[in-house]
Parts: sequence; C-alpha cells; structure tokens
Amino acid sequence: MKQDVENVIKSHTEPNSDEYFMQEALKEANLAYLENEVPVGCVVVRNNTIIARSHNTRDKEEDIFGHAEIKALKEASSQIGSWILDDVSVYVTLEPCFMCAGALLQARVKKIVFAASEPKHGAIGSITNIFELPNINHHPEIIKGINEIEASTLLKQFFKDLREKRKSK
Amino acid sequence: MKQDVENVIKSHTEPNSDEYFMQEALKEANLAYLENEVPVGCVVVRNNTIIARSHNTRDKEEDIFGHAEIKALKEASSQIGSWILDDVSVYVTLEPCFMCAGALLQARVKKIVFAASEPKHGAIGSITNIFELPNINHHPEIIKGINEIEASTLLKQFFKDLREKRKSK
Repeated sequence: MKQDVENVIKSHTEPNSDEYFMQEALKEANLAYLENEVPVGCVVVRNNTIIARSHNTRDKEEDIFGHAEIKALKEASSQIGSWILDDVSVYVTLEPCFMCAGALLQARVKKIVFAASEPKHGAIGSITNIFELPNINHHPEIIKGINEIEASTLLKQFFKDLREKRKSK
Repeated sequence: MKQDVENVIKSHTEPNSDEYFMQEALKEANLAYLENEVPVGCVVVRNNTIIARSHNTRDKEEDIFGHAEIKALKEASSQIGSWILDDVSVYVTLEPCFMCAGALLQARVKKIVFAASEPKHGAIGSITNIFELPNINHHPEIIKGINEIEASTLLKQFFKDLREKRKSK
C-alpha cells in the first residue's frame, strides 16, 4: 500500500518548474505519511534553490506549530537571517490554514503554490482568501492545483488507513 | 520616559480577574518595550494560574514566530504536553494578527482577551473575525478592550520613540 502511494509521486518534470518543486514538497508529504502524520509537505525556494524543506509532525511532537509551512519558514528565516522572506516561493501540498497563511503574510513571501484545496480550514480561497481582505497590503503570486491529484491521493490514503486502524481496534 | 510608561501599569485589581491577568500581560509588553521591540505581551492562564508568559522578540531574534502569542502558546503546549489547549485563556495586549489568531484557533483555546485593537493586521474583529467566518467550528469566548488605554499608551510611546530616534539619525 505504501509502495502504491509512493508511486503517485513521479519525477519526470522540467527542473525548476512549479511541478518540480511541488514534487519535492510531495516527497516531504510522503515522509509525513510514513510517520503516520497527516501527509503535508513544504519546500521553500530562493533563486531556484530549495533552502528549506519540512513535513507535518504535529501529532508526534504535540506541537501546534508542527505544520509543514511553519517549520519550513522557520528554517528559511534562519538560513536567510531575517524574518522578512520577500524573495522566496513556498510550495506546499495542501492549502494553508489561517495560522500558516498568516505566517506567509507576515513573512511577505513572493509566491505561494499549493496543490490540494482544504475546504474546512483553507485560508487562501476556501474559507476566505486572507490576501484579498480589506487593508491587506501584501499580495503574493498565488498558484493552486499543481499536482493536486497526487497530494489528494496521499491525504485520502492516510485518512482511509486511519479509519481502518480505528475499525480494527 | 520609561518610568512614565511603567507607571501606566497599575496593579490594584481583583486577583484572577481579566484585568489582573491583562496587567500581567502588560508587564510582559513593558519588557518588550525595554528591549526596543514592539511592546506586546501575553499570558496563558489555566485554572486561574499563569502557565506561560511571553513578549514580542521578533526583531531581536529575526524570527517570524517571535510574536508574544506564538511563544506563549508554544510554552503552554509544552507545559500541558498537548497541542490542544481547550482549557486555557489567553490574555494579549494587542489584537492578534492572522498568524496568531490562526494559532489560537488551531489550539482551540477556550477564551481570548485582548486589550488594544489592531486596525491594520487584527484578525479578531478589525480586518475580519476569523472565528465568525463560515465553516469555522471553534468559537472561543472573546473579550476585548480590557486595559486598552494602558496597552495603547505603551504602543504609542514605542512608535513615538522610534520616530524620534529616526529623526535624530
């Protein structure tokens, strides 16, 4: 089953394309899946180079801030030596929640690319788009739906596994 | 001047009242002021006991996540051993931004009390109230305006000092 999930992550894409970086984020999501965490991955890119990568570890670490985006932004901020990250692009496999979208706003990132939408918690188009609210003066480029099927397949598999584990208890 | 600012923080209030805990948050805000950081402070309260306290250190530490609420929530989460903090009240001297309000939502805190409103970034009533958006299923008790004058005075003094420093350069 895990092999099947890994197989959805293909790597035949143009280097430095949005698809290329999203597949790197999907590799991180797959690591979360293998650790029994909600499979979400993120990479932060500057000058076509991945400067930070992370995946969700919230349950394992009992950390509110264990979301993939938060950890990757923290690492990127540390790499750059500034809390302003206005020359980076962030690739994440699931639409960010308010906390993560708020962090992307605070850090003034240049571009946000996400794969699957998140109808229950998504703050970049699902519940609202925080970047389009009145008085918000930072407007990053936003692209959604890149590798959406792969990201959704991994998430659906995770929640299917979880239901099966609960049934068998 | 700093003495004047300290004097706005009085301590003649009923123990365990909202005013009492907000004054503790104001003491944290004052620490931020003394460190030349935007003066915002926060305390997290559980069973009438402060289990975490913090103040803004974003510039000093070049950390996106240096906001008072994030640091206090992280400490509270570590104290409790869970990322779900549904039995805590959070007292903060300034209306939380999207990132911090999103973290309070994620952690499912029971009650949020803030002092001054934040027209440019506030996500609990100013730009929007994220807890009142469609599909949001967590609705903490929210109280605003407690010790608002003290919190605002400290913030105004900080920005006045900053302007004077810039002029004198």
